[in-house]
Amino acid sequence: MPVNLVATPAAELFPVPGVRWGITEAGVRKAHRKDLSVLLLDEGSTVDAVFTQNRFCAAPVQVCREHLFQGFGIRAMLINTGNANAGTGDDGLVRARSTCIALARLLEIAPEQVLPFSTGVIMEPLPSDRIIAGLPKALDAAKQDSWAQAAEAIMTTDTVPKAFSRRVSVSGKTVTITGISKGAGMIRPNMATMLGFMATDACIAPALMAGLARELAEGSFNRVTVDGDTSTNDSFVVVATQQAGHAPITSWASAEGQALKTALMEVARLLAQAIVRDGEGATKFITVRVEGGRTADECRQVAYAIAHSPLVKTAFFASDPNLGRILAAVGYAGIADLDQSRIDLYLDEVLVAKDGGRHPGYAEADGARVMQQSEITVRVVLGRGEAVDTVWTCDFSYDYVKINADYRS
Amino acid sequence: MPVNLVATPAAELFPVPGVRWGITEAGVRKAHRKDLSVLLLDEGSTVDAVFTQNRFCAAPVQVCREHLFQGFGIRAMLINTGNANAGTGDDGLVRARSTCIALARLLEIAPEQVLPFSTGVIMEPLPSDRIIAGLPKALDAAKQDSWAQAAEAIMTTDTVPKAFSRRVSVSGKTVTITGISKGAGMIRPNMATMLGFMATDACIAPALMAGLARELAEGSFNRVTVDGDTSTNDSFVVVATQQAGHAPITSWASAEGQALKTALMEVARLLAQAIVRDGEGATKFITVRVEGGRTADECRQVAYAIAHSPLVKTAFFASDPNLGRILAAVGYAGIADLDQSRIDLYLDEVLVAKDGGRHPGYAEADGARVMQQSEITVRVVLGRGEAVDTVWTCDFSYDYVKINADYRS
Repeated sequence: MPVNLVATPAAELFPVPGVRWGITEAGVRKAHRKDLSVLLLDEGSTVDAVFTQNRFCAAPVQVCREHLFQGFGIRAMLINTGNANAGTGDDGLVRARSTCIALARLLEIAPEQVLPFSTGVIMEPLPSDRIIAGLPKALDAAKQDSWAQAAEAIMTTDTVPKAFSRRVSVSGKTVTITGISKGAGMIRPNMATMLGFMATDACIAPALMAGLARELAEGSFNRVTVDGDTSTNDSFVVVATQQAGHAPITSWASAEGQALKTALMEVARLLAQAIVRDGEGATKFITVRVEGGRTADECRQVAYAIAHSPLVKTAFFASDPNLGRILAAVGYAGIADLDQSRIDLYLDEVLVAKDGGRHPGYAEADGARVMQQSEITVRVVLGRGEAVDTVWTCDFSYDYVKINADYRS
Repeated sequence: MPVNLVATPAAELFPVPGVRWGITEAGVRKAHRKDLSVLLLDEGSTVDAVFTQNRFCAAPVQVCREHLFQGFGIRAMLINTGNANAGTGDDGLVRARSTCIALARLLEIAPEQVLPFSTGVIMEPLPSDRIIAGLPKALDAAKQDSWAQAAEAIMTTDTVPKAFSRRVSVSGKTVTITGISKGAGMIRPNMATMLGFMATDACIAPALMAGLARELAEGSFNRVTVDGDTSTNDSFVVVATQQAGHAPITSWASAEGQALKTALMEVARLLAQAIVRDGEGATKFITVRVEGGRTADECRQVAYAIAHSPLVKTAFFASDPNLGRILAAVGYAGIADLDQSRIDLYLDEVLVAKDGGRHPGYAEADGARVMQQSEITVRVVLGRGEAVDTVWTCDFSYDYVKINADYRS
């Protein structure tokens, strides 16, 4: 069961001028499943993206990098579920390119203007012929108000489609931001999540677009984990169609720039957190905030050690305030000169450990009360400096094992 | 259910001259449980040990380090289950020391000649009064042939006591090696396992004893993982009582040195592997061998990425040859310049992936056959050099979650 996550109603997902989605059934892995989505962008759109740092990255990720590097101006993306086209060697690259070539021919653009994305089972050949055969139907279906359907079409083990929309005013014009994401397992993005797509009609100068995906990912997708497994296919794309009609944003420090960036980050973070809320088997949403580090990097390192510990995650599943497991994870996080006698641990507002030992005023009933909640904040104070970082994760339940033991069946 | 592990019969556990075990019920956490063990060493014994690298190391680990550093000659150890005395701050240190002082007084030795060990729940005060009250009874019970009882007395979530014995001939004298270990969860030793004790009556020169525990751990306890959680209490102790009557070993390169070292390593490895075989919820014993790396360190890094991946571990539990998950783990193991097109993957003798992609001759039925076995070797060839390393792990089942969600209840 997802944790405090319901699908955003289609009516609350605002179309983004310049963006259309076409969705169809291509029979990639199973019949009667909307498994092929095409995203079409008007000319003049700018695109930025980040991809998995997994060295075993999937063929479509390699092709995306090549095509973005060419700089011809991206006009289309195609996304299939059911097959990740990863661990497929040269054959996988050929098949990913062939789908781009086919879509480019239908749209009368260059293949380098198409980005391919795949998600699903690893190490099986991509049925590129069925994908290519499905493209004309996807194009026929293309329209602006299909974000809700796109969020559904890119799901794999997700139980809830993930889509969010915001509108902000920029220089007197209304700007729309809408995004979708998917992913529930193999989630420890190291650049981006399994798949995330955001678009805005805002006018953003090219210099600001370059690096925007990374900047947004650093505050969102790069701060979530379900199981610590960094996928082969993680991709996060941000599109600006430049159609909102306001003067281009040339600095994020300006009032308009700040307002837009805040709204972009809000949507990115909602999309990333939604992946954790719908994490495989998740019953709780846990915020791990580490304060008082020398650097944000070491805070993040400690936060991830806690967020990845199977013992911590099963204790949250059981609502058991067996909180020494959190201290153990802090200890093995890899900070060589950590002084345990300076460490405090809070569960929401309850002070559990003080100066590295159980706080004399801590009553287990207080810890147990917080552990019952569906949203919990773990706060660790390292007592070494002023830096802070936060990651979001979920607990570890029977259903995680069930889902991953049964995934292919 | 442990994987191909049964308790060694008491008759096959040879006493080590110079070593006695006394075991009793002290009511540390629960009544009617043998939870306090005292290990007594004859004068002249030498001791080496390694401890957890967890910065949140337990109070007894800190006291052990102090006492070993004093160099007075260790004469006794005391081990309690039920309480880890970790995350207990200064109070934990005071209590650990008080148990050493009490035992030293009874034995008329210095407190610095006693090493304390604790295992159990973290962040609860050690009931040192009950431990101290139990010491006289433990001493009364002390005898040479209690290794089997000691292996049982140090268990926590273990389901099988872990003890192994070997005899080797050194310069015409029979030398005995006997050891015990415990641990089933929070197992990713970074120096040693939860608890491991080995003794031999061999005569080993002091210069060789220093560092022996670390050397043995590097080939045994430091190569196993259950859940990736490095404990606060990991301790591994090697004792040589020097009573076997042969000329002291002064070099491991000599014929006698080699024979002894091989036997010592064999016992250490059996003890370490037994912990994985009895890993919480384990149904399979998995050897992960990584070859063709530039350094053994990078091979170990890749092996641990595979061994820690919840997705890989649940696939083994399900006997599902969803082997792309292994490639994904290789990819995120952190080797920045890894070339995926050179990687081969074997499951036992079955070649699954060749040059980074599915091997054309691979039939899923062959992978499925190997996955059904209770002992499986994953072999990854990196194609970058000549280095090799191996780690041992188990799968990840419903029972892991069950055991860890219920542990304290």
